[in-house]
Amino acid sequence: MSAIPQDLLQQAVTAKQAAIKPFPCSEKVYLQGSRPDIRVPMRKIALADTPASLGAEKNPPVYLYDTSGPYTDPKQTVDLIAGLPALRQGWIEQRGDSEELAGPSSAYGLKRQQDAELAHLRFEHLRKPRRAKPGANVTQMHYAKRGLITPEMEFIAIRENQRLEALSEILKCQHPGESFGASIPSLITPEFVREELARGRAIIPANINHPESEPMIIGRNFLVKINCNLGNSAVTSSIEEEVEKMLWAIRWGADTVMDLSTGKHIHETREWILRNSPVPIGTVPIYQALEKVDGKAEELTWEIFRDTLIEQAEQGVDYFTIHAGVRLAYIPLTAKRLTGIVSRGGSIMAKWCLAHHRESFLYTRFEDICEIMQAYDVAFSLGDGLRPGSIHDANDEAQFAELETLGELTRIAWRHDVQTMIEGPGHVPMHLIKENMDKQLKECHEAPFYTLGPLTTDIAPGYDHITSAIGAAMIGWFGTAMLCYVTPKEHLGLPDKKDVRDGIVAYKIAAHAADLAKGHPGAQARDNALSKARFEFRWQDQFNLSLDPEKALEFHDETLPQEGAKLAHFCSMCGPHFCSMKITQDVREYAAQKGLDEEKALEKGMEEKAEEFVKSGVELYRRA
Amino acid sequence: MSAIPQDLLQQAVTAKQAAIKPFPCSEKVYLQGSRPDIRVPMRKIALADTPASLGAEKNPPVYLYDTSGPYTDPKQTVDLIAGLPALRQGWIEQRGDSEELAGPSSAYGLKRQQDAELAHLRFEHLRKPRRAKPGANVTQMHYAKRGLITPEMEFIAIRENQRLEALSEILKCQHPGESFGASIPSLITPEFVREELARGRAIIPANINHPESEPMIIGRNFLVKINCNLGNSAVTSSIEEEVEKMLWAIRWGADTVMDLSTGKHIHETREWILRNSPVPIGTVPIYQALEKVDGKAEELTWEIFRDTLIEQAEQGVDYFTIHAGVRLAYIPLTAKRLTGIVSRGGSIMAKWCLAHHRESFLYTRFEDICEIMQAYDVAFSLGDGLRPGSIHDANDEAQFAELETLGELTRIAWRHDVQTMIEGPGHVPMHLIKENMDKQLKECHEAPFYTLGPLTTDIAPGYDHITSAIGAAMIGWFGTAMLCYVTPKEHLGLPDKKDVRDGIVAYKIAAHAADLAKGHPGAQARDNALSKARFEFRWQDQFNLSLDPEKALEFHDETLPQEGAKLAHFCSMCGPHFCSMKITQDVREYAAQKGLDEEKALEKGMEEKAEEFVKSGVELYRRA
Repeated sequence: MSAIPQDLLQQAVTAKQAAIKPFPCSEKVYLQGSRPDIRVPMRKIALADTPASLGAEKNPPVYLYDTSGPYTDPKQTVDLIAGLPALRQGWIEQRGDSEELAGPSSAYGLKRQQDAELAHLRFEHLRKPRRAKPGANVTQMHYAKRGLITPEMEFIAIRENQRLEALSEILKCQHPGESFGASIPSLITPEFVREELARGRAIIPANINHPESEPMIIGRNFLVKINCNLGNSAVTSSIEEEVEKMLWAIRWGADTVMDLSTGKHIHETREWILRNSPVPIGTVPIYQALEKVDGKAEELTWEIFRDTLIEQAEQGVDYFTIHAGVRLAYIPLTAKRLTGIVSRGGSIMAKWCLAHHRESFLYTRFEDICEIMQAYDVAFSLGDGLRPGSIHDANDEAQFAELETLGELTRIAWRHDVQTMIEGPGHVPMHLIKENMDKQLKECHEAPFYTLGPLTTDIAPGYDHITSAIGAAMIGWFGTAMLCYVTPKEHLGLPDKKDVRDGIVAYKIAAHAADLAKGHPGAQARDNALSKARFEFRWQDQFNLSLDPEKALEFHDETLPQEGAKLAHFCSMCGPHFCSMKITQDVREYAAQKGLDEEKALEKGMEEKAEEFVKSGVELYRRA
Repeated sequence: MSAIPQDLLQQAVTAKQAAIKPFPCSEKVYLQGSRPDIRVPMRKIALADTPASLGAEKNPPVYLYDTSGPYTDPKQTVDLIAGLPALRQGWIEQRGDSEELAGPSSAYGLKRQQDAELAHLRFEHLRKPRRAKPGANVTQMHYAKRGLITPEMEFIAIRENQRLEALSEILKCQHPGESFGASIPSLITPEFVREELARGRAIIPANINHPESEPMIIGRNFLVKINCNLGNSAVTSSIEEEVEKMLWAIRWGADTVMDLSTGKHIHETREWILRNSPVPIGTVPIYQALEKVDGKAEELTWEIFRDTLIEQAEQGVDYFTIHAGVRLAYIPLTAKRLTGIVSRGGSIMAKWCLAHHRESFLYTRFEDICEIMQAYDVAFSLGDGLRPGSIHDANDEAQFAELETLGELTRIAWRHDVQTMIEGPGHVPMHLIKENMDKQLKECHEAPFYTLGPLTTDIAPGYDHITSAIGAAMIGWFGTAMLCYVTPKEHLGLPDKKDVRDGIVAYKIAAHAADLAKGHPGAQARDNALSKARFEFRWQDQFNLSLDPEKALEFHDETLPQEGAKLAHFCSMCGPHFCSMKITQDVREYAAQKGLDEEKALEKGMEEKAEEFVKSGVELYRRA
């Protein structure tokens, strides 16, 4: 019908090639819950047998948490124009506490829908919005507090366990972790999910107007999650690019996506992303509100902001960053900083506070905001508008004053059964990271922490995915529930697809390193499986089990492109004449031949082995 | 004259373009010590003034530690055929405790020099080797123990301070660190350098046959250093490539380089690297010894190894990795591992021990080795042959048993006044890293720790510079003196120039993050300078102060290539309509206009400011 959808159609075809093709040797499988419509997607990786020389062992498939949605399932048809199937629609309707509206109840949403000039940009199959019935509260926290286990909660329990029960002994084996007081159970049950939600220690971002989303949970007693920021600005980027980046982001493992667009057509871009996203979508509503007053922060009003919240809630945004902790009295505390206020939302609100010389409507109207959130189940992500923008400014008075206020607001949100997480810094040297986590846990009563990095030094623009992955891994270990990724372009420009991939993989590493250090049950299984494959020279399995199979293969092939090299018992690092991995294999073969326990064989048979070694000529390397 | 040198000549020209051109706005300067031949190179970066609207402040130049040697000094002629000037030759001769030999005293060194077939590969301007006079000991540790401050020690004191005394107040300002019991002084004096050497807590790798090297120190009370591994294998790479990679490595900040070549022409490759390297060079002599017995580990003998040590010591290698801690009884402890023995040197020695059923000659002849080391001042890097090769195998009995032996060997080396550092893992989850450091400090009496990563997860081949930078930053903070880099190609192939750059920058980040967290005096100056430039929209200064100015500029220009954008008061992330950095600038301008202290101005003038804001229309963005 119109320009954008046609582009998107084409886009869908291209995307199929790169962003949505299944990973090698991987199959999308679904684990069924207590009812047929609870089907939890996992990525199943088939592994080769251990080579005959090492015992011809069968290696059971490995099951991974899978954020990529229906796109990587070849049995499902990808149609960006139609959007994804509404997975949760039945669950939402069955609860009977919400109702379909005739149309958008926000003035702006209505205006955009009626604007004929936007027809060529508009998502075609608009669904009518739902809202809680009068007096009802449709948040997952509300259900949890009432003792109800929702299908979302059961879905998550299955998803978080990653088929832990089916792991072989060797994959199950792991180091006891250090979790700094977290309460991670050996198996996640639906009841545990419910308890954590009721206590406010975890959230399920699941707007009733985003039924396409596959339920996921954010909390310190679950797997550490990562968020990927997208969004165009006035300077660059378009709707198609943002939708494609979203597909790309979930392929590499983004657990949630924030749409931070600031240009024109924010509303339409968001609609396209939401209708095609299997992961929760977050936004910063004040960005759009600011567009509505032509960028003049001081002209923002509660009415404009309120209308924006409703507009976005009815589209299906799952969580809102709201900088309600930027209080008037805290702004002077930033005057001594080296880099002032670096949060965009924070500086918008600071400007408003200065211009009006009073507390912002985000703070004074906080309970009104809670009422909107509970009518759609939008979760709070309480923004850290005063986060430090440099190592110099880390952990200062302004930052911590705001954090205390966020703790007070958390209590208020919880009174309304609104799910709440807390945003955190920023730029922090390593030795000051733990103080951030400890203070957040204390002030915010264990509400999930959601941090940006933190960057552990300022001196590496172009590599801030690395400066921040260091801090992210550490704060994830200490208890942060979700890590907001940083790309190599941070401080320099908007990320392209390559940057998104680099940023996400760096953050998957950080999140996984944190899970390992916390001792999350089963977290080490993938490491063990990959290391076993490495030791047994199952090259293809090494690639397939890695966070980025395509990159691993590409790097291997840069030096040894021949197919045979992928069966070889050596790599280009040591060459064929000597490979350190080979020696232990010989030791083990020897023990197996003797039918002995490995250690005993070694202890007792050392001398015998010495003779044998010399007699046999000891050529460790054998051509594959 | 012959193929390789001609190639190298050409190479030198190419290298001039990419690997050795000075960084933008940077000048090589020399700080003079107590005598005219102590000239310490630094990189001086000139900065722009603060824009007039923000006070037109002069920003003094920033001085950085500079590993790139004479190459980035346009006043010096680069001639790879001639090699670098012998900076330390006079100091070595003046000490009068060494003598020039007639030629190589190793059988192999002599043979290679006399082999006419190697003429086309051989470095042309071979210097005659020096050795300690009979009964003399020429190690820096020996001088230090006798109370002598050498020019090397003074050079290092100046170098480590990075002109700390000249820093402005704002750059000097930094967070107190947490150094876990390190003894970092507020200013490094030559006497402090001497004390640390005498105590064994630091080493200066400075073979008397590598007079081209610019003195540097490795110890927990100094700046954290990084090492870059190079080296060809039988499968790939050549002499020219390795020399070029060395140039490339020191450009990005490698403090030492290890030549891990395993193919043919190891001897000649090393000569070319040494004669052109301003940083210390390390090797693993057992690799070459193994080549001499055609890869048959069990045929290695003390005599072959000894000859190899002398051969390499007389070429000028500054430190040797020697896996003397791989004891026979420890090998069975590796049988339960998932990935066995992954150190190449470790597995060579394990194979030898198994084949002979006795302790290796590295262990039994350790005192003989010490005597060779002290005659040339080669430092020990006691190898961790039993380091873990997977998360599963971290901190196991085999690893720690070897570490205890390395502690015993350290005591023996110190009795001979031989400088010693200790190598460490490998693959370790975050929560087990500190145990490694604590145990090393205790068992090895604070001898410098030199670790490979550690990698904090196994699941990201293709990104192991990141999995390991996380662990490296942490262990550097805890007390590791030098971090051995890991490139993205680790486990997959040999690094090319791009991988070397990526690996080094990741490790410069880790080392610097560690310096910041330890609270090393002046460590935060570069962060402060860069953040100040960022806040003041001095884009070019941001690029120039970063670890990789070329990459930062390239990334910025991908979105906003126009020259004007580099003066703009916005970037592509927020666009021209709103920039968060701008708000605090307005606050400050206001205070300055009123002639008030910033905080007071804000407290008292808030209401007045509110009125002014509204009246003036508050357009924060101004075109540059």
